[in-house]
Amino acid sequence: MPTPTDPRQAYLELVKELREIAVIGSIASVLSWDEQTYMPPGATDHRANQASLMARISHERFTSPRLGELIAAVEQSPLVADPQGDIAANIRETRRDYDRSTKLPASLVEEMSRVEVLSQQAWSDARKKSDYAEFRPWLDKVLHLKRQECQCVGFKDDPYDALLDQYEPGETATSVRATFEALRGPLVDLVGKIVGSGRVAPLEILQRNYPAAAQEKFAREAARAVGFNFNEGRLDTSVHPFCTHLGPGDVRMTTRYDEAYFADAFFGVLHETGHALYNQGLPKDQYGLPRGDDVSLGIHESQSRMWENLVGRSRAFWKHFMPQARAAFPQALAGVTEDAWYFAINDVRPSLIRTESDETTYNLHVLLRFELERALLRNDLSTNDLPGAWNERMEKYLGIEPPDDARGCLQDIHWSGGAIGYFPTYTLGNLYAAQFFEQARKDVGDLEGQFARGDFAPLLGWLREKIHSQGMKYTPRQLVMRITGQDLAPTALLAHLRRKAGELYGVS
Amino acid sequence: MPTPTDPRQAYLELVKELREIAVIGSIASVLSWDEQTYMPPGATDHRANQASLMARISHERFTSPRLGELIAAVEQSPLVADPQGDIAANIRETRRDYDRSTKLPASLVEEMSRVEVLSQQAWSDARKKSDYAEFRPWLDKVLHLKRQECQCVGFKDDPYDALLDQYEPGETATSVRATFEALRGPLVDLVGKIVGSGRVAPLEILQRNYPAAAQEKFAREAARAVGFNFNEGRLDTSVHPFCTHLGPGDVRMTTRYDEAYFADAFFGVLHETGHALYNQGLPKDQYGLPRGDDVSLGIHESQSRMWENLVGRSRAFWKHFMPQARAAFPQALAGVTEDAWYFAINDVRPSLIRTESDETTYNLHVLLRFELERALLRNDLSTNDLPGAWNERMEKYLGIEPPDDARGCLQDIHWSGGAIGYFPTYTLGNLYAAQFFEQARKDVGDLEGQFARGDFAPLLGWLREKIHSQGMKYTPRQLVMRITGQDLAPTALLAHLRRKAGELYGVS
Repeated sequence: MPTPTDPRQAYLELVKELREIAVIGSIASVLSWDEQTYMPPGATDHRANQASLMARISHERFTSPRLGELIAAVEQSPLVADPQGDIAANIRETRRDYDRSTKLPASLVEEMSRVEVLSQQAWSDARKKSDYAEFRPWLDKVLHLKRQECQCVGFKDDPYDALLDQYEPGETATSVRATFEALRGPLVDLVGKIVGSGRVAPLEILQRNYPAAAQEKFAREAARAVGFNFNEGRLDTSVHPFCTHLGPGDVRMTTRYDEAYFADAFFGVLHETGHALYNQGLPKDQYGLPRGDDVSLGIHESQSRMWENLVGRSRAFWKHFMPQARAAFPQALAGVTEDAWYFAINDVRPSLIRTESDETTYNLHVLLRFELERALLRNDLSTNDLPGAWNERMEKYLGIEPPDDARGCLQDIHWSGGAIGYFPTYTLGNLYAAQFFEQARKDVGDLEGQFARGDFAPLLGWLREKIHSQGMKYTPRQLVMRITGQDLAPTALLAHLRRKAGELYGVS
Repeated sequence: MPTPTDPRQAYLELVKELREIAVIGSIASVLSWDEQTYMPPGATDHRANQASLMARISHERFTSPRLGELIAAVEQSPLVADPQGDIAANIRETRRDYDRSTKLPASLVEEMSRVEVLSQQAWSDARKKSDYAEFRPWLDKVLHLKRQECQCVGFKDDPYDALLDQYEPGETATSVRATFEALRGPLVDLVGKIVGSGRVAPLEILQRNYPAAAQEKFAREAARAVGFNFNEGRLDTSVHPFCTHLGPGDVRMTTRYDEAYFADAFFGVLHETGHALYNQGLPKDQYGLPRGDDVSLGIHESQSRMWENLVGRSRAFWKHFMPQARAAFPQALAGVTEDAWYFAINDVRPSLIRTESDETTYNLHVLLRFELERALLRNDLSTNDLPGAWNERMEKYLGIEPPDDARGCLQDIHWSGGAIGYFPTYTLGNLYAAQFFEQARKDVGDLEGQFARGDFAPLLGWLREKIHSQGMKYTPRQLVMRITGQDLAPTALLAHLRRKAGELYGVS
């Protein structure tokens, strides 16, 4: 079949094909969701066959020469004349993806997915034994393949850019470094002051007995209250909490319940709800096209962190939810004042594990990983020296040193699975969240008053209009500029964290 | 790519392709399982897109000319010299499927699936209102398309054969009719005697309060005890109970719990467990090939009915399970003797709804449907006259007349969904089950003694060896002949039903 000479014809064919590829991807997501929630253990091998077949079919279709011809036919046409138009956005982002996918030879992709499976297994074993030496050869293999990937994809200044770009379009090692450097000093300073304040949050309150069934009920109520649509989604249980978009009308999230710790599941659900609200707010009629997809991991994370931290750990939020919490957990919350509760859920203290760390120190965990993974990729740091470099930075940024590598450089799954360039998106998300939230307060008015009344619709409506409904129309930086009139910057996040530190620890 | 001239090459390529097509089919089954268990309501439209894409990809690959060439290359070769060999079975059954699939024009397949969706909707609405006139035009449409299907597929004597053959390979309208005619008279006679006996089972026992959680626990215990492997399967809840084979190591069944009726869920689970045990016993190394697939719907049903009725409603079974039942339902079973319980779960009485009917009258419901659907397809009966013909036969076979069409000819979903030729497999399943069970008793020895000790492994082992592990090596009739030395016949089922009638109703 010759490529249509009419660019509109080409565009229509492209849209049809992209939508089918998206449906295939969504089927793979169903398989993955099932695998993590209900699949019986004996099905593991067959599920791998199912998943790899879907991945292969999807990859074959997305990298077909025909698709490249269709993209080219449209991008040389007047259809993309308006750079802010939907078609321009769809072509721009499809081109990005297409180029990246076609630049990677199938042999490299296969080798990476093979090594990643084995490497994750090795990491999991090594972490259990806290035996970094056992994992190190695998990390070397992963880095070797990732460097090849960088060469295939291409980059201007830094190989790291070739990896980062797939998670956060437009960012580079240089731009992230500039942002993070501006954040690091003030953060280290703030954490030091908090530690030095001598005040300690009554964490013990969160460690009382919180029955799982009551936790689940309460978390569902909160998710529903802030706007999660259970008619078009679910909440289940899994070992590793996640949120997945299975298609229009189907957004599912998971959590896990620890009866001896309240914060894990509850703020976890709020976090996943933030992701879910974004997914549920994407334009359904643009499904399968970039115009109907999320902007980046950083912007996605801005939504989850906003609901988890800026909303969920606010005084106003608990003004509304405290009575429900008391009803849900009468024993645990007996005699607990609103002030004590607020302090407990906003505890800040240096700790070893990123995923368990607080709103403030969390970013220092991320900065450290960004610096180290970039150095590893560039061969500025040998994997031999990783544990030492890790511990040294932990000491420098947080004033504590990991007693072993399991609680040090072996704690995260990311590197073993080849996700290098991913970590920065967590802190970018926090930065964007704070900037968006600051703007929302200006645009929407008294957010806190609304939260205290249990009214989250104004904030959600604002996010829907400004962010969710826009799909990938803008790049992350364009989006923050359009919405707030400012570029990405650490100011808003620092102001937010300092405000809380002032309130709770008397420092700033 | 030219077809390999070496038949072994051709066979290897065929096997690879069939296995991938099976994986695609198994993915479609995951989608369907999820749809019926956990999918949020809002996902319905997208799920339809996912399912139809998988169906299309699978159909395109299975009907490709290349596949036909590969089959032909093998079937003209010495590889199939041994008609009892695995390759012969794989080629024989793939040829059957391939011919059927390629004979149906895509336009007809699409029109059928479109009409079936609408027709099922119309049926569902019509049944609610018991308004047959509203459904009749849709039944006409379905019959019209089914007649076209028969013409495309081809048949010798009776168009009905073209439909029946896909569910029960080798059976024809004539052969089924002969079997059913031999069954009908004795069954009608037996039911008449039971009704005339004046004895009535203490059904009320089953209608006490049976808490759903206790039902689920007890049903799980029973499923596990008879051999269901929960490491390679699940039991969930759905509106319509079913069992689905999602691939090696993944067999899932569902049920629903009625707290005011014990028998529905419990015997439903035993029924689905029978299907599941068959699936779990298929040879995993032959997955995706006929040699690793089930023989027919009739043989599948023989497994479910055996565990539900021949095992699950036996005295010996309850000798073992009664203490567990008493522990699970202490209130409902207080003062209930084993005899009363045994009578209650073996109640026989004419009733209106097939799915709620007992082991004996069930077959008369099926016979009636077979006779009517065959007459409808051949235009021997007009859809105008269906309700009258239905009610007349209900009166003749069971001595009762439906008060409305909802409880008459509108009760089953099958015809609205185009499943004409499917009903006979239910009774064929009962016949095969009785024949197999009679033989198992001869081969394995004291089955009842084993059941009473809670030992179901000998029977399951026998089924595994004789039936499950054989895949589609033999046709249904060949299989029963090999196992029992006899052809399909109503003798064993009638003997079983008469034995119970003698024991409980004093008639035979």
